[in-house]
Amino acid sequence: MRSLAASRVVVIGLGLMGGSLAGALRGRCRTVVGVARRSETVDLARGRGLIDRGTTDVRSAVANADIVVFATPVRIILRQLPEVGPLLPDGCLVLDLGSTKAQILEAMAALPPHVEPLGGHPMCGRELSGIEAADASLYRERTFILSPLERTSAEAIERGRELVAAVGASPLLLDAARQDRLVATLSHLPYLLACSLVRTADATTSPDPAAWEIVAGGYRDTSRVAGSDVTMMLDILVTNRDAVLAAASVFRDKLDELTRLLAAEDEPALRDLLVASRTERRRMFP
Amino acid sequence: MRSLAASRVVVIGLGLMGGSLAGALRGRCRTVVGVARRSETVDLARGRGLIDRGTTDVRSAVANADIVVFATPVRIILRQLPEVGPLLPDGCLVLDLGSTKAQILEAMAALPPHVEPLGGHPMCGRELSGIEAADASLYRERTFILSPLERTSAEAIERGRELVAAVGASPLLLDAARQDRLVATLSHLPYLLACSLVRTADATTSPDPAAWEIVAGGYRDTSRVAGSDVTMMLDILVTNRDAVLAAASVFRDKLDELTRLLAAEDEPALRDLLVASRTERRRMFP
Repeated sequence: MRSLAASRVVVIGLGLMGGSLAGALRGRCRTVVGVARRSETVDLARGRGLIDRGTTDVRSAVANADIVVFATPVRIILRQLPEVGPLLPDGCLVLDLGSTKAQILEAMAALPPHVEPLGGHPMCGRELSGIEAADASLYRERTFILSPLERTSAEAIERGRELVAAVGASPLLLDAARQDRLVATLSHLPYLLACSLVRTADATTSPDPAAWEIVAGGYRDTSRVAGSDVTMMLDILVTNRDAVLAAASVFRDKLDELTRLLAAEDEPALRDLLVASRTERRRMFP
Repeated sequence: MRSLAASRVVVIGLGLMGGSLAGALRGRCRTVVGVARRSETVDLARGRGLIDRGTTDVRSAVANADIVVFATPVRIILRQLPEVGPLLPDGCLVLDLGSTKAQILEAMAALPPHVEPLGGHPMCGRELSGIEAADASLYRERTFILSPLERTSAEAIERGRELVAAVGASPLLLDAARQDRLVATLSHLPYLLACSLVRTADATTSPDPAAWEIVAGGYRDTSRVAGSDVTMMLDILVTNRDAVLAAASVFRDKLDELTRLLAAEDEPALRDLLVASRTERRRMFP
């Protein structure tokens, strides 16, 4: 397997995540080739200096690839893996950036034996999307989860670590089930909460023009991820359904507990829970 | 009533909100006197240049005041208003910074007739608290709600507007019930959601050390206000209980709707709601 510096890297999907990764890798490997469905996207990526070359033709792009990174929505990756796998050269590293890993690792396990699959999930989503929002510094100082398969070689994991370090992120090895359960609470649940909050405001306060003048920081931050790309998030929710529903169920219990104590005016118990929340939040983000 | 520039302003309570207001007013009025329960707080405020003078003695502080601003937690304000009201000079403007207005305006209505009460609520809370976090620029470009009483004179409202402008904020006149209903959804509900999310993580993912490495932006932002001062927030929740519970109830329905569609794998309907959330979020914060 070639070193990263000598590798031809192909990034399939030039949205926020793929475009940013391509930009961060450019100059740190032999070539970065970008693949997008629309030629306008390829032109934009090239115009912004995020890729060395670009094409809408996956087949020609991957023919000589040392590393292929799938940066499309999760269910597009699930469809692309079996299509693209047989086209890849011997020993090609296959990495993805999908936010859920169980189904992707299943699809990766079915890839032809001559390629080296490795699941990936960088923790740097934003509520912006598209190549226009791509930013080569997006991955800096972020955690980049790597989920190896049983068949993944030590060398492939090492190359994955090298790629993660090259874009400024820190690798964290996690198995698929554990990563899916963790991100259900830490990433996918916050999205459902943000959407529900926006819909609550839409139903209650938005008809009042004053609402627009007083939306404060609390609302802005709590609702931020509701602006995320819907196709990406829908794929995430559907492919991590059970873990997301389990997290939402725990959340509902916690919210009910707070509102029940407030309704009952049980201040000592309510205060205890609020203090515990504050302490825990400060422990997570000192 | 004196102009703001000629006014002696007393700020009671030198936490984040009071300390920041004092600092923003200093130099724009005759004097800014700060009152705190603990002399250490007064010393800190003076040391940081947020006040001209400070004391722990409310009585002496307010004897010559032209404007008195209550910047303590809501239920402390409710207790202080009847105590401090009779000590105030003729025509003194009485303003507060409490996040809920119905009960405060009731207490203000009972003030002696020689003072001029005006409810206030600046939309610039933060998850930090205390004089250490005070910042004279906190109010800049924020909305500052003013809730006049029936007895409030036009001149008092005008002086309130002048004070709001002096700290860099924009005044918005709202009656108490309307403001309480709006902030229940836009400020108090996000706090309950943030606390419930933190408690969900605490119950599900926090025992896994990997959780601490992958807490991403979505979780950080959605949970931010859980770090708010508990005494302040508890007072807010209790004095705006019905509106908060009503907002939480709508929220629960909206979340249930999303999880029900996800459980049923009704993707078209789920997508519609996610798209509506994204559109609404982007309409609020273009």
